[in-house]
Amino acid sequence: MYKNSSTWKEIPGEITTPKGYVASAIHAGIKPGSTRKDLALLYSLNPARGAGLFTTNRVVAAPVRVCRQHLAESRGRIQAVVVNSGNANACTGRPGFIAAQQTAKEVAKVLGVSRSSVLVASTGVIGQPLPLERIQIAIRPLKGLLCFEGGRDFSEAILTTDTRPKVCVLQSRLGRESLTLAGVAKGAGMIHPRMATMLAFLTTDAAISTPLLRAALKTAVDESFNRLTVDGDTSTNDSVLLFANGAAGVEEISKRGKPFEHFQDGLAQVCTSLAQMIARDGEGASKFITITVAGARTASQAEMVARAISNSPLVKTAIAGADANWGRIICAAGYSGASIDPDRIDIGLCGVQVCRRGQQIAFDELRTKQLLSGPEIRIDLNLNQGTQQARMWTCDLTEGYIRINAAYRT
Amino acid sequence: MYKNSSTWKEIPGEITTPKGYVASAIHAGIKPGSTRKDLALLYSLNPARGAGLFTTNRVVAAPVRVCRQHLAESRGRIQAVVVNSGNANACTGRPGFIAAQQTAKEVAKVLGVSRSSVLVASTGVIGQPLPLERIQIAIRPLKGLLCFEGGRDFSEAILTTDTRPKVCVLQSRLGRESLTLAGVAKGAGMIHPRMATMLAFLTTDAAISTPLLRAALKTAVDESFNRLTVDGDTSTNDSVLLFANGAAGVEEISKRGKPFEHFQDGLAQVCTSLAQMIARDGEGASKFITITVAGARTASQAEMVARAISNSPLVKTAIAGADANWGRIICAAGYSGASIDPDRIDIGLCGVQVCRRGQQIAFDELRTKQLLSGPEIRIDLNLNQGTQQARMWTCDLTEGYIRINAAYRT
Repeated sequence: MYKNSSTWKEIPGEITTPKGYVASAIHAGIKPGSTRKDLALLYSLNPARGAGLFTTNRVVAAPVRVCRQHLAESRGRIQAVVVNSGNANACTGRPGFIAAQQTAKEVAKVLGVSRSSVLVASTGVIGQPLPLERIQIAIRPLKGLLCFEGGRDFSEAILTTDTRPKVCVLQSRLGRESLTLAGVAKGAGMIHPRMATMLAFLTTDAAISTPLLRAALKTAVDESFNRLTVDGDTSTNDSVLLFANGAAGVEEISKRGKPFEHFQDGLAQVCTSLAQMIARDGEGASKFITITVAGARTASQAEMVARAISNSPLVKTAIAGADANWGRIICAAGYSGASIDPDRIDIGLCGVQVCRRGQQIAFDELRTKQLLSGPEIRIDLNLNQGTQQARMWTCDLTEGYIRINAAYRT
Repeated sequence: MYKNSSTWKEIPGEITTPKGYVASAIHAGIKPGSTRKDLALLYSLNPARGAGLFTTNRVVAAPVRVCRQHLAESRGRIQAVVVNSGNANACTGRPGFIAAQQTAKEVAKVLGVSRSSVLVASTGVIGQPLPLERIQIAIRPLKGLLCFEGGRDFSEAILTTDTRPKVCVLQSRLGRESLTLAGVAKGAGMIHPRMATMLAFLTTDAAISTPLLRAALKTAVDESFNRLTVDGDTSTNDSVLLFANGAAGVEEISKRGKPFEHFQDGLAQVCTSLAQMIARDGEGASKFITITVAGARTASQAEMVARAISNSPLVKTAIAGADANWGRIICAAGYSGASIDPDRIDIGLCGVQVCRRGQQIAFDELRTKQLLSGPEIRIDLNLNQGTQQARMWTCDLTEGYIRINAAYRT
């Protein structure tokens, strides 16, 4: 049944495509002056197993603290998440924490579920009081709008500076049954997740025990959202939440083995797909960049090099300018903290080798410039020191990033 | 004689203002298409004591390796430095190293001094072969141009994307005698020095033993160039070189004590002044930003917080937009790695308190916006955890940075 672990197929859909999930969104008026939908609700008709991963920033937004509390109190039995955009509810002190708790409590009440089975997430400006009353007024209508087609509205209401929704749905047929995995994410700036990302919500109708769900999420996030950077800023609100409600009617995954590996595989695919969508939609981005560092002594050395390159504004502006400026790439490798040997490094740009053993080699500048003018950029390094590798995704750094962020709050 | 350690006074002048130094510059045609002066020479008429600090990047440019070798061979007895802009001579392999050695050797020959008393420095594009022949042709005329008024030409010839020369001269009267300290620097991008900066050359007519000269330079650089960031990229060519030729005729400083402290004081002032000039002239910069983090448990915790804020593109674009977006500041403090407590942090912007104990307080937004629209920005944090502090300098991040760096190489 699970012979081939790559049987997950991407299908059109939304976060409500797995069985047993409904969603909705509404304009609550959280950000002054905006007319967009800014409050969203996801609800599993059955109690689901849940797992979450959150920001490693020491400044932790109120909704993240409420999520941690509720996941602990409910022992991972969750049923809903309510999300607002337009306000991060971070650095809002005790009133902000109470506002997040109150939001969860009132959603629980209208849904008729326990308070601790409701999670909350927020994204937007840091340090502004959350307008709780506007949320309270909107909760009942938001519940009234819940439907199986509500995933699209949900994916739009959670956006901030994003230019488009980010959704991925995978399906796997198992004889006459099928399992579905879906994910939706938001994020375009303040992106440098370590352990989590801006906001991502994942649903599945698989049945799986809570410890295995947590393990699968951690592995998937390490390979996906944690390989992503837009600007090196780790947010206060990063949250990835995963719901597994068992509504597919497929046997519960309660131990490691083929079924678990299959699930892990699909989850990593969804997360990777969402992480790449975030990089593609990075603030002001015109190009998606994949950095692969091979031939390292250890995976963590490879990651240090890939991370330094992916965070270098000089590399990212060179790519914006379609400039085969490999000197900036080797320079970033040099200050990454990894024990590289510059005289061994090979560098390729979009498949064209431009540097061999630390020195420039003859290459077709014009053709390389053409390749670097495209929307998909590959930077490949071989450190020629070992067999380990790592990969990171990022985007180029353009004047658009500056325009967006010099004007975002006001 | 040394009662008051703050007797250093800034005077107009150049790197040749201390007694016994001559300099010159010439157009050698190192960067194709440019008509600027790009080769410069500084020469001390007497053999000087020398000290140098260099990049911590593992990718080390050829001239840096030659400097280290010559400082070791000559036991810190140096007499000249030859500098080119337009080409970094980094990642140029064995031919690059030989070219740097050859340059020093030929300069030594025309000056009639030992090879190991001549240092070399380069700045410009990484990975391109150094056009040694053009330099060789220019060395004799460069020597012919040496004069006491040559400091100005020197300071201009070493620039790349800098918009102006960076010079600081201090003088201290000691009865009928006087000591002079001078420095010149270049640097505008790829600035995140740790142990050194892009290029800085310091001269003094004080007499001081080599070990004390080294100690003084290390202290001064730690307090100045190492407190500076433009874009978080540490260059392959960072070098600070200090000449002390004793030409003032003042007694040699051969032990710690008042005279040494006095010298140390002036040296730190010159370096600080140059570091601030580099931040002010950061690529595309419209504002100079001083970040002060107080109330930390340790100085290194304070530095981690100040460094994270000074490297955050979101903070730097907010300042470009004159936006009192303190949420991005506290967010950067949170991911800095320091063990801060967000609920204790106070934040001031240009003297206006905007955050108390981790939360927004009422402040005059309009007035703050006016202050943030000026060219000098202060960001002050109090962590309220202890008594230690640290300071960093940086500049705002504007569209100008992107324009310069998307087009720099080609």
